[in-house]
Amino acid sequence: MSDPRVAILMGSQNDWAVMRLAEEALEQLGIGSDARVISAHRTPERLTSYLADVEARGIEVIICGAGAAAHLAGVTAAHTELPVLGVPIDSSALQGLDALLATVQMPGGIPVATFAIGKAGAKNAALFAAAILARKDPEVAKKLHEFREAQSAAVPERPL
Amino acid sequence: MSDPRVAILMGSQNDWAVMRLAEEALEQLGIGSDARVISAHRTPERLTSYLADVEARGIEVIICGAGAAAHLAGVTAAHTELPVLGVPIDSSALQGLDALLATVQMPGGIPVATFAIGKAGAKNAALFAAAILARKDPEVAKKLHEFREAQSAAVPERPL
Amino acid sequence: MSDPRVAILMGSQNDWAVMRLAEEALEQLGIGSDARVISAHRTPERLTSYLADVEARGIEVIICGAGAAAHLAGVTAAHTELPVLGVPIDSSALQGLDALLATVQMPGGIPVATFAIGKAGAKNAALFAAAILARKDPEVAKKLHEFREAQSAAVPERPL
Amino acid sequence: MSDPRVAILMGSQNDWAVMRLAEEALEQLGIGSDARVISAHRTPERLTSYLADVEARGIEVIICGAGAAAHLAGVTAAHTELPVLGVPIDSSALQGLDALLATVQMPGGIPVATFAIGKAGAKNAALFAAAILARKDPEVAKKLHEFREAQSAAVPERPL
Amino acid sequence: MSDPRVAILMGSQNDWAVMRLAEEALEQLGIGSDARVISAHRTPERLTSYLADVEARGIEVIICGAGAAAHLAGVTAAHTELPVLGVPIDSSALQGLDALLATVQMPGGIPVATFAIGKAGAKNAALFAAAILARKDPEVAKKLHEFREAQSAAVPERPL
Amino acid sequence: MSDPRVAILMGSQNDWAVMRLAEEALEQLGIGSDARVISAHRTPERLTSYLADVEARGIEVIICGAGAAAHLAGVTAAHTELPVLGVPIDSSALQGLDALLATVQMPGGIPVATFAIGKAGAKNAALFAAAILARKDPEVAKKLHEFREAQSAAVPERPL
Amino acid sequence: MSDPRVAILMGSQNDWAVMRLAEEALEQLGIGSDARVISAHRTPERLTSYLADVEARGIEVIICGAGAAAHLAGVTAAHTELPVLGVPIDSSALQGLDALLATVQMPGGIPVATFAIGKAGAKNAALFAAAILARKDPEVAKKLHEFREAQSAAVPERPL
Amino acid sequence: MSDPRVAILMGSQNDWAVMRLAEEALEQLGIGSDARVISAHRTPERLTSYLADVEARGIEVIICGAGAAAHLAGVTAAHTELPVLGVPIDSSALQGLDALLATVQMPGGIPVATFAIGKAGAKNAALFAAAILARKDPEVAKKLHEFREAQSAAVPERPL
Repeated sequence: MSDPRVAILMGSQNDWAVMRLAEEALEQLGIGSDARVISAHRTPERLTSYLADVEARGIEVIICGAGAAAHLAGVTAAHTELPVLGVPIDSSALQGLDALLATVQMPGGIPVATFAIGKAGAKNAALFAAAILARKDPEVAKKLHEFREAQSAAVPERPL
Repeated sequence: MSDPRVAILMGSQNDWAVMRLAEEALEQLGIGSDARVISAHRTPERLTSYLADVEARGIEVIICGAGAAAHLAGVTAAHTELPVLGVPIDSSALQGLDALLATVQMPGGIPVATFAIGKAGAKNAALFAAAILARKDPEVAKKLHEFREAQSAAVPERPL
Repeated sequence: MSDPRVAILMGSQNDWAVMRLAEEALEQLGIGSDARVISAHRTPERLTSYLADVEARGIEVIICGAGAAAHLAGVTAAHTELPVLGVPIDSSALQGLDALLATVQMPGGIPVATFAIGKAGAKNAALFAAAILARKDPEVAKKLHEFREAQSAAVPERPL
Repeated sequence: MSDPRVAILMGSQNDWAVMRLAEEALEQLGIGSDARVISAHRTPERLTSYLADVEARGIEVIICGAGAAAHLAGVTAAHTELPVLGVPIDSSALQGLDALLATVQMPGGIPVATFAIGKAGAKNAALFAAAILARKDPEVAKKLHEFREAQSAAVPERPL
Repeated sequence: MSDPRVAILMGSQNDWAVMRLAEEALEQLGIGSDARVISAHRTPERLTSYLADVEARGIEVIICGAGAAAHLAGVTAAHTELPVLGVPIDSSALQGLDALLATVQMPGGIPVATFAIGKAGAKNAALFAAAILARKDPEVAKKLHEFREAQSAAVPERPL
Repeated sequence: MSDPRVAILMGSQNDWAVMRLAEEALEQLGIGSDARVISAHRTPERLTSYLADVEARGIEVIICGAGAAAHLAGVTAAHTELPVLGVPIDSSALQGLDALLATVQMPGGIPVATFAIGKAGAKNAALFAAAILARKDPEVAKKLHEFREAQSAAVPERPL
Repeated sequence: MSDPRVAILMGSQNDWAVMRLAEEALEQLGIGSDARVISAHRTPERLTSYLADVEARGIEVIICGAGAAAHLAGVTAAHTELPVLGVPIDSSALQGLDALLATVQMPGGIPVATFAIGKAGAKNAALFAAAILARKDPEVAKKLHEFREAQSAAVPERPL
Repeated sequence: MSDPRVAILMGSQNDWAVMRLAEEALEQLGIGSDARVISAHRTPERLTSYLADVEARGIEVIICGAGAAAHLAGVTAAHTELPVLGVPIDSSALQGLDALLATVQMPGGIPVATFAIGKAGAKNAALFAAAILARKDPEVAKKLHEFREAQSAAVPERPL
């Protein structure tokens, strides 16, 4: 596979069931990714150490998936100037509403681009990472365009 | 001012009180923007016609602000492959919760990068647009870095 | 079956499990319908092209079912002056609250008549479409009246 | 003014501040209306007596505005086969969320077409009533079309 | 069984799974009840006819269970001066929040005494009906007292 | 004034602005009341000591008003077999939703009859207390009936 | 096992499935606990009697788990000056949102330290109780430190 | 003033209006505090550097106040084994519900003791910090006891 240009961080091993949709979508678009389990709460040093040289290792966009009091994306955004995409995960009693608010309601100054709760959000974060890369990489732009065309074509005319 | 690279669309004139924070933040970072009132509901043709040649006119990122059943960002994202950023605006009885959910809960396939409700979101969408442009434009990256440094320095040590 | 007078649009194939209740209720009232999968996000052109001549093809009422950031009904209402009925579908982590708000909270100027989340809403949208047609078609009015009578009679006196 | 074809019912005198937007919009479209204060709770007999001959008196659509545990639209729909439109009003501590759910979540069998909370909903209910009447009255259809054209034209190109 | 002193009304046959807990609790306290399926929406005449002579038939308290846009308790309270107890039932996508708000948020003037969503509420409505009857019937007061004593005694000291 | 038959307890002095509507409504119906500030949290002994002989002093119904984590009604209900009516008060950032849920969601076994958030609820709790007393006191029944008649008559026919 | 220093109270036997996670976490840290079923509503005397000499029996921190209108922690805090920790339990239709608000929204003057809904909260309350004891007991501090180290080490580098 | 034993951290200068209630309550109990503005997002290094030697400087409890996507308490808890108390602040469109969920819904392993939204929470966090210190400091225990006595005595018997 090509060198990773997108990091996929998740707060716990359990989030992988959702976040692997980001990995798959990136792969489909020919974009390499680097998936890591990094808890903002249980392994804070691992996060800062990973982010310290993330840009140097070729990562251009960071996707963070987390549930409950989802702090991972916000804390990541505090430590990098790369675009940070947040995916709220439905892993508590409140069905992801907590994760959504904890991800999207960032105060002015440190943005996190937030996507839908769960699998739709993981997939869309990947597509959005591709849209960012497409700004300077015509190959990604072409792949993204083909994906969009194929996606439109795949919608059936009538319900089955 | 420099040529506009970011479009700022808003669903109604009333949203300008919030969305002008996006314009101001972009200006601070030396990025030109093009602000338009385009209602996904009242002027749908204006939207498709604006988007038809938006890329040709140099726009690289589109920020959409809307309240209530906020469809503007989602409909924009359906018509372009440029990155679309959504800002939910608190303009109904439900304090922006309706606009937030209508913006962020996009189905898999068509992403909208969503930011906080209201002014914090408008400012952050602008900063995030800069982070996208910074991927290929070192000048923007430098300005964004300086902004972040200044922002950190401006936080007082103790409450006043 | 009689010529379709009501269109039943849905955002994805998965919504059919809910929206077929609309088709069934219309059929019971002798009203033909035309069911289509049209995503406001993935197939926007299909939507405008379908709506371009929908009135010419005899459609008088349009029912739209969609989940999550449910934009289908609002976008449809932006492109037609026919009555548009919206059915929020519970297909995300937030149990249809997102779809309800994204459908009902339309800004002043472009109305969407919204019904309950899920199957009750799909059935009621069909009954309401019949009530609209009944304003000028005594045969539909008669069928609707019989349906209401039968429905009342079917409620048991005591719980079983 | 022309003979009333639309009834505007409201649960209390206080709701008039919102519901008069429905009256105004109908007037703008040349449609006569009959505004009444009828509480489903404090004057239940007045409601059934009003509805008993409402159709005979030329009413074709009924708009009901109510706040809090908003039962007016649902109870009206139980007593008539005319189309009933519900407008949730923000008049309690919960900002209209109670009125919205109490209006829209009707069980299968008795539909209430629900619109946005507050003034946007009152205006839209009137426009929707016009869309129903337009199905058989070309004059109303023409007025509604002109309204929509004018509304689109009134959206400014750029924020002021 | 003794003559019914409490009516148990429910909006649909499906609500019986919850409302039978009210019947059982009343029976345990030696209080006769009369359970009926009466829909405020599908059988409005049945409701007014049942309430017309309900007091004459010895009913002293009315318990109403309903889900979704739960109007049954409010409409009942509009037609009687007997105490009306409301039990919101979780039968829609919104888990009973709609039924709770539609039952409890009654406007000033027509009270509905509301209890918890679901089975706890059905049981408690029965206990509360007993507390009302106990105000004038020492036998009920005695039974209620014994119930409360037994209930306290049945709580285990330590978790098992 | 007549001897108090209804206790009006409130969690803090600030709740009086709402709870005095209960006192006023009772007074209008000729029912004496005893208003007290008793905090379930700050003065728990005062509560148990007040409840110890409350029945002996002629109180037949207890109304409890409290905001935020409103425990007053539930704790009162735990210590008495008299009917306990709860009024949630909007005194926190969450607009009374917290007080509503903390009052109404009582577990099976200890009922609290809950009314609307705020002033409507305070008034309705008083009317409901009267409905309980009316079960054995024809004078109260008569006054309540007159109140209901007057209330219906006071609703204007048309909005002003 | 060592003498109990932490009390674990729960409102009903059913809460034990959640609250045993507190017991297990304390045991892992070598801290003895005393688990009791005490309902604030069904056994109020048991609560005051348990709390009367709880300090004398060596208890230093009290953890309270309860669902629905969760009053246990607040009432406990009203009767003791020991630190009271509250764990909201998801045991009603509202998924623990009711229990969370009823536990955390305590009025100024009587604090309850609240943790997450359900098992995460039960575990965290135990860890927090240990952090309190660690303030004066170096042995607990050491165990807590080891727990934290082990917990960090147990997070896998990459998703499996 | 005595040496600070409690740190009061807040995410922005604006939070001071709320958090000064914590400072005041601690002062009333004779406990010194150290108030700092430290943004988890805008000044992440300031946070880790402050926490690095916080224990060495005599701090025993840390109170964190933050609004919106309130990450401050959680991130603090990730970097220290001292007890961390969180105060959600109502500074966004969602009235503190976002801050509450982002503070309280911590995943298992890293606890944050959460208090009510806003001023009540700030005061209670201070009282709770005192309760922690009271476990080993009889002087604080005595002051806390006096505070509680005075607080009870200050509740008026009857509403004024």
